[in-house]
Amino acid sequence: MRNHPKIPILKLYNCLLISIQWELDDQTALHFQEDLLNKIHETGANGVVIDLTSVDMIDSFIAKVLGDVITMSKLMGAKVVLTGIQPAVAVTLIELGISLEEIQTALDLEQGLETLKRELGE
Amino acid sequence: MRNHPKIPILKLYNCLLISIQWELDDQTALHFQEDLLNKIHETGANGVVIDLTSVDMIDSFIAKVLGDVITMSKLMGAKVVLTGIQPAVAVTLIELGISLEEIQTALDLEQGLETLKRELGE
Repeated sequence: MRNHPKIPILKLYNCLLISIQWELDDQTALHFQEDLLNKIHETGANGVVIDLTSVDMIDSFIAKVLGDVITMSKLMGAKVVLTGIQPAVAVTLIELGISLEEIQTALDLEQGLETLKRELGE
Repeated sequence: MRNHPKIPILKLYNCLLISIQWELDDQTALHFQEDLLNKIHETGANGVVIDLTSVDMIDSFIAKVLGDVITMSKLMGAKVVLTGIQPAVAVTLIELGISLEEIQTALDLEQGLETLKRELGE
């Protein structure tokens, strides 16, 4: 167990749930990227919900890490749904050219899970 | 949004999910207690799953905070299920007289949720 605070990744059925509830520093974001990919590998999860409800804004580095982790997860075979994107976060993502067209979004965690279930044909 | 890292509390349907994945310091544990009770109040959740799978051991202070938060949640009308208790954690809880008889436990998050559903008669 690392003492450095990290973002908990919860496994529920075949999905991973992540709720980001504090402002990420660069190091935590990179750890999160690594942890999530490892967890997808370990658990064989085929869906990921990242909830950003409590995130007011993100900087360009965090937005890039987030965009990357979504692409990487897809490569590994896991669909990612982002939930609870606030206006300022949406603006940052778009301004940085992180194409939300490819990213599934939903209102909250419940609906994120429902979206995944539908997408994964369950 | 507080900058101090706090333990994310996820709301899923009428339950709150918490996964503790790093060693808690006293301050974080107390914040967690406060956050959880507030969240129960805000959301009207009637079930809570606290997953301790990644916790190797706990000290007496954290054990007491955990015992307290379970009792307090009950007072507020929310059932608590602890999941993934490791041997050393079980020993600490028992040695401190935190009566596990009153505490529902389960193997993992899925089973914790199932236990709650059963208990809450859904």
